[in-house]
Amino acid sequence: MRSAPPWKQLLLVALDSNAHLKHSHFFQLATVGLNGKPSNRTVVFRGFQEGSEKIQINTDSRSSKIDELKAFPFGEICWYFTDSWEQFRINGKIDLIDASNSDPVKLQQREKAWFASSLRSRLQYTGSTPGLPCISEEPCKECHLDPSAGPVGAFCLLVMDPDQVDYLNLKSNERLMFTSTWNEEGDANHWTSERINP
Amino acid sequence: MRSAPPWKQLLLVALDSNAHLKHSHFFQLATVGLNGKPSNRTVVFRGFQEGSEKIQINTDSRSSKIDELKAFPFGEICWYFTDSWEQFRINGKIDLIDASNSDPVKLQQREKAWFASSLRSRLQYTGSTPGLPCISEEPCKECHLDPSAGPVGAFCLLVMDPDQVDYLNLKSNERLMFTSTWNEEGDANHWTSERINP
Repeated sequence: MRSAPPWKQLLLVALDSNAHLKHSHFFQLATVGLNGKPSNRTVVFRGFQEGSEKIQINTDSRSSKIDELKAFPFGEICWYFTDSWEQFRINGKIDLIDASNSDPVKLQQREKAWFASSLRSRLQYTGSTPGLPCISEEPCKECHLDPSAGPVGAFCLLVMDPDQVDYLNLKSNERLMFTSTWNEEGDANHWTSERINP
Repeated sequence: MRSAPPWKQLLLVALDSNAHLKHSHFFQLATVGLNGKPSNRTVVFRGFQEGSEKIQINTDSRSSKIDELKAFPFGEICWYFTDSWEQFRINGKIDLIDASNSDPVKLQQREKAWFASSLRSRLQYTGSTPGLPCISEEPCKECHLDPSAGPVGAFCLLVMDPDQVDYLNLKSNERLMFTSTWNEEGDANHWTSERINP
């Protein structure tokens, strides 16, 4: 079994040292909009995919980032830790796993992500289409959800496979660039790192 | 004199209610990279341009966002307030004001931004080119800067002119979309707002 990439170790330490802050699990995900312009929003870190450095994000399949990622599946995460003054800029390709996915393993990952999130989080996916004009003042009529029921149609799991990580520590003023390369077998990531000017 | 757009009023209140947090002045700026992929980094809010809703950011003219903005001058700011749970997604065109700018009024704005920043901030622009491999362990040799000296060559002022602002309040679960339109004279922004689903 290969060891975790060095940036993942730094990230785990940052998560640990900022764990007292609820927002330490929030980061900003940039994508390219359908008009070619950049798009940027706060999302919640839902952990790494088991035994890998792939980053999981839950989202509503009716949100505009889904159309954007279907057209151009690349994103850059900007994750700033407000207590330790560390920034991780993580870019990579993003895989979309929604109800229509044909891969049974991926559907299982989606189900696992669904059950790993709180009932309150799950309820969001039963509401009105995000971003559309608000036509009703009434509260949600289906505000009860069977805790044992599987993912609803609007629930989508995003999985980012990082290609490059730009790490900046504003306390030590150090910056490191981690880049993934393929090994000779061509089937597993190998990471190189270089110290660059902050 | 026209009144401030409604989103600017919300933003000023958010800045005020989060003022005890140093990081409340930090936000994430997304641009489109030269390879077409999204790019995202934390930057510091340097205030509004006098009498307007234009947002100022200081940056190093040698950083890669400058080449990106020269090629495609659009950005989206994602500004999350960790205490009040408010998010502002602000998109618009970004004007670059570096030493080579031919407009004397803009050069004056750049000079004003230079003197408005701390000596410590100014010193950053005298260091090595950001993002290049770190070739020296030695500290900066020019770590003294005449406080009365004007902006160095690497200092660049970015000015974003907002087109659309997507406001989300996670405490009240309200979301508002503010869109700028041109008035009949075609020379001043008029803002419309709509309540949309969160």
